[in-house]
Amino acid sequence: MPPKPLPSGSTTHLPPGDELRFGKPTHGWRLRLYSVIFESETRAGRAFDLLLIAVILFSVLVVMLDSVQPIRARWGELFGVFEWIFTIVFTLEYIARLACLGRPLRYARSFYGVIDLLALLPTYLAILVPGLSVLIDVRILRLLRVFRIFKMSRYAAEYRALVTALAASRRKIMVFVGFVFMVVLVLGTLMYVVEGPQHGFTSIPVAIYWAISTMTTVGFGDLVPKTDIGRAIASLMMLLGWGVLAVPTGIVSAEMVRHGRDATPEGFMGRGLLGGMPPCAGCGAEGHAADARFCRRCGSALG
Amino acid sequence: MPPKPLPSGSTTHLPPGDELRFGKPTHGWRLRLYSVIFESETRAGRAFDLLLIAVILFSVLVVMLDSVQPIRARWGELFGVFEWIFTIVFTLEYIARLACLGRPLRYARSFYGVIDLLALLPTYLAILVPGLSVLIDVRILRLLRVFRIFKMSRYAAEYRALVTALAASRRKIMVFVGFVFMVVLVLGTLMYVVEGPQHGFTSIPVAIYWAISTMTTVGFGDLVPKTDIGRAIASLMMLLGWGVLAVPTGIVSAEMVRHGRDATPEGFMGRGLLGGMPPCAGCGAEGHAADARFCRRCGSALG
Amino acid sequence: MPPKPLPSGSTTHLPPGDELRFGKPTHGWRLRLYSVIFESETRAGRAFDLLLIAVILFSVLVVMLDSVQPIRARWGELFGVFEWIFTIVFTLEYIARLACLGRPLRYARSFYGVIDLLALLPTYLAILVPGLSVLIDVRILRLLRVFRIFKMSRYAAEYRALVTALAASRRKIMVFVGFVFMVVLVLGTLMYVVEGPQHGFTSIPVAIYWAISTMTTVGFGDLVPKTDIGRAIASLMMLLGWGVLAVPTGIVSAEMVRHGRDATPEGFMGRGLLGGMPPCAGCGAEGHAADARFCRRCGSALG
Amino acid sequence: MPPKPLPSGSTTHLPPGDELRFGKPTHGWRLRLYSVIFESETRAGRAFDLLLIAVILFSVLVVMLDSVQPIRARWGELFGVFEWIFTIVFTLEYIARLACLGRPLRYARSFYGVIDLLALLPTYLAILVPGLSVLIDVRILRLLRVFRIFKMSRYAAEYRALVTALAASRRKIMVFVGFVFMVVLVLGTLMYVVEGPQHGFTSIPVAIYWAISTMTTVGFGDLVPKTDIGRAIASLMMLLGWGVLAVPTGIVSAEMVRHGRDATPEGFMGRGLLGGMPPCAGCGAEGHAADARFCRRCGSALG
Repeated sequence: MPPKPLPSGSTTHLPPGDELRFGKPTHGWRLRLYSVIFESETRAGRAFDLLLIAVILFSVLVVMLDSVQPIRARWGELFGVFEWIFTIVFTLEYIARLACLGRPLRYARSFYGVIDLLALLPTYLAILVPGLSVLIDVRILRLLRVFRIFKMSRYAAEYRALVTALAASRRKIMVFVGFVFMVVLVLGTLMYVVEGPQHGFTSIPVAIYWAISTMTTVGFGDLVPKTDIGRAIASLMMLLGWGVLAVPTGIVSAEMVRHGRDATPEGFMGRGLLGGMPPCAGCGAEGHAADARFCRRCGSALG
Repeated sequence: MPPKPLPSGSTTHLPPGDELRFGKPTHGWRLRLYSVIFESETRAGRAFDLLLIAVILFSVLVVMLDSVQPIRARWGELFGVFEWIFTIVFTLEYIARLACLGRPLRYARSFYGVIDLLALLPTYLAILVPGLSVLIDVRILRLLRVFRIFKMSRYAAEYRALVTALAASRRKIMVFVGFVFMVVLVLGTLMYVVEGPQHGFTSIPVAIYWAISTMTTVGFGDLVPKTDIGRAIASLMMLLGWGVLAVPTGIVSAEMVRHGRDATPEGFMGRGLLGGMPPCAGCGAEGHAADARFCRRCGSALG
Repeated sequence: MPPKPLPSGSTTHLPPGDELRFGKPTHGWRLRLYSVIFESETRAGRAFDLLLIAVILFSVLVVMLDSVQPIRARWGELFGVFEWIFTIVFTLEYIARLACLGRPLRYARSFYGVIDLLALLPTYLAILVPGLSVLIDVRILRLLRVFRIFKMSRYAAEYRALVTALAASRRKIMVFVGFVFMVVLVLGTLMYVVEGPQHGFTSIPVAIYWAISTMTTVGFGDLVPKTDIGRAIASLMMLLGWGVLAVPTGIVSAEMVRHGRDATPEGFMGRGLLGGMPPCAGCGAEGHAADARFCRRCGSALG
Repeated sequence: MPPKPLPSGSTTHLPPGDELRFGKPTHGWRLRLYSVIFESETRAGRAFDLLLIAVILFSVLVVMLDSVQPIRARWGELFGVFEWIFTIVFTLEYIARLACLGRPLRYARSFYGVIDLLALLPTYLAILVPGLSVLIDVRILRLLRVFRIFKMSRYAAEYRALVTALAASRRKIMVFVGFVFMVVLVLGTLMYVVEGPQHGFTSIPVAIYWAISTMTTVGFGDLVPKTDIGRAIASLMMLLGWGVLAVPTGIVSAEMVRHGRDATPEGFMGRGLLGGMPPCAGCGAEGHAADARFCRRCGSALG
């Protein structure tokens, strides 16, 4: 059985499961539109993807430049025009996405559907609200458009793989962060008592902010211990944070080493590390070890 | 050989050993109270646990908000009332815990017993002491109540697992920290001599505090070398600290990878990683995936 | 099966492939020149290498000292003379390199060929340009000569191995950095909205610079959040950055562990780790220690 | 063959090799003195060790406190007396060490012999020099006595193991640090050109100091980029440093994982990880894998 080509480099937007979930159209203009927007195997699909990435990056760049005072003073009006062009382009794209799907509402409620909508709303709301709200609020809504960049994550299979890898150790890291938070709470309170408001530790929340910046080895230096006892406690916290920092790294390292050993084909480093065993011809089970000669689930010989 | 069910997700407060140690009651109201307070399989037990977690979190939040000057000015009296309600609730809970155990004194001397008591004492001591001591001392005692949050650690099996993992590499990390401390002592002294009091390095302990903040890559910036030699030494220390930082991470990573390989079922990441499958009866091959039903080398069925 | 000698410690400048690519001469003075310049097995070749390293280091030292104002005021003219001596030496060396190769143009376009040229150009351009350009531009060109130090990388096999190891995980780290950049873009924008120009976050690019310095745990402290919400977001970013920092470390650790397991002889840590012993002919057991002469499972002699 | 007890927890000062090298005495008072000073199996030997550790720690504490101005003003004279007592005690100990060895000069030239002498010299030199040198120089000599603390490293087998582990990956980390130094040199020079003396980057060495503090994620904040280009370069450096930081950690992690696998009995984590296979009864070879049944060197069956 020859190993069939793997779609690891593929940039299909919707995995097979999503095709069913959102209702891939079966014929006519909607199928053609679908294949351009949601697929990237065809030349038109790939061109659409690259164009969309370029527009997203350019629109984010415009928002960023618009925030720099001297540039805004000079090009502000042009940016306003661009702003509306981008918004109309993204609106048309959003409508097209919904139009070609069999179950548009289900897509609209999915993660990327919400992100797509969030990228549109601020500019429209900015028209309605200015008469009611103050200027700063409008700007907050506008800046939400930066979320557009998250749409990019859909275009690179590598991004999705990385998110998967982070999600795998997410729970362990969360538990660890919770543990760190408890330590930081107690030590921050201790520093609040030791240093007190006269040295900048004006409240327990501020002291916790300082404790986090110390234990994560960020160390801004806006708050620093000034008493001898405070410096001694800070020294212990730095050494403690240094040692404890090893834990999340160890979790992820072990996860990565495991991926290499277990050869899960869709895993973060899987394929690259172990050379990609084909799925079982008998039962379709995947993720066989690199030295496997028989399917571990149904026992039939592997290619 | 059927795989036996694993209690990894269980949230029983007392492990089997502790049931014997503290004397689990065998019948009557004490058994019912015990099952509510110390166990979480029943509906009442789980409700009690969730309620207690909520009260602990809320009481810690009150202590934190009470330290913020503007909030305290406005809500201080209400916080005082909450303070007493929490203290009475925790006192009743503490008495109930002792009452339903066969060996209450042994529990009172255990780690959680002491934590439980420490969470109560400050508020009561604040009544007795004010006539004698100054106000600031009382506040120190008050803030000890933040230790209440440690009671939470009992409610998550994950927390206990993490503590176990840290404890396993504790000795090695301690030796390492000791080694780092020696290096920091010598280099701090060197910087004290090179930079001297005129650049803020007023004594060897201060210079050691600086050396720790540099080698742990915290770098507050309250003390910085100003001479050329001082900056050269600081550069070497930063590179040294960077390289040496790898050691505790390596220790914990190796520990985690080992856990995965040895398949200790109760270990930190154990079960999930390798599943501790028995070797193949046919060919003796080891290291089967956790979901394997057939040997990957010879194809015969696994136990 | 006698273990064949490994060329891991060899310092031949051009790997066998490059000998063909650049056209190694076959006889006469060009072969002699080639063996001195490009090879290091002969005494003359090794002496040439060491001399060149010394000259490169010395020329970089001169550029560095030339930038220190008091030293420049006193020794500036001497540095100018050295500058020209170094440039002439490197020019002659560059000509000699091209002269002895069969395909000099191909070498000139290779990575080291370009570096060699970049190390020469600034000093020459500084003669032509001064009449046209301002002084500061010239200095920029001059400082490019620091790139000379990259020529050193050719002289240590270890350097090349390290570059290989970094290149192996380069793509994964790049994807990760891209992911981090997206997070930093969104969180930086959020901080720009929350803190605003009055607290130093004058534009989104500045806020992104701050977000990067926070999530990488650098924490300069030139910009710090001053509002309560800003500090809360900063705390979350620090914890997030701390957890996420584990990812590149995990990638590289897994890569290194894999190198050790696969026993690739030319790999970064390869040979030293497992030694690539053949499996036992008697029982097929693998993973023998590098110094094993008998199978640890069945006791029969190993190849 | 029962596994014979392992001396892993032993604190014998001289390993068997050193006994031959330095000439362990064979009888009389020198043997008794030797067993007290260099060995720790006897009660007298252990008491001597603990006493020496206590004296070393106390003497270091006195030097540290002596540097704190208010404490020195009050207790300075007492510290001077202690100073002399410690020096005399260490002098007597040094003489005793040399006296009981067969080859005292060889010991005096060994690492610990030099450390022992360095711990004595400053106080004596402080008598001779004051007439000639200025006061500050004398203090420098005095502070060298902090090296005394290094004598402690002899008393803990764990310390020695850690040093061994660091030494094992020393060469790789050094190569890596050299690589980082090249990057830092080029980027520091670039920042010197971009930011220039007006923003604090007064010379290339200062810019390199800043580049190191940035790439190691220390980030003191005494020097910060102020131009937009400078901040962009700094952002790239921070991300680069973050990714590159993974390399030494990966090196050490892989080393630690390997130690666990190869079961080198004297290695850093060796014994603890693999349960300690006994040495071969036939040839005395050590470090057998945990699953070994036959000696890998001579092929005879293991106990």
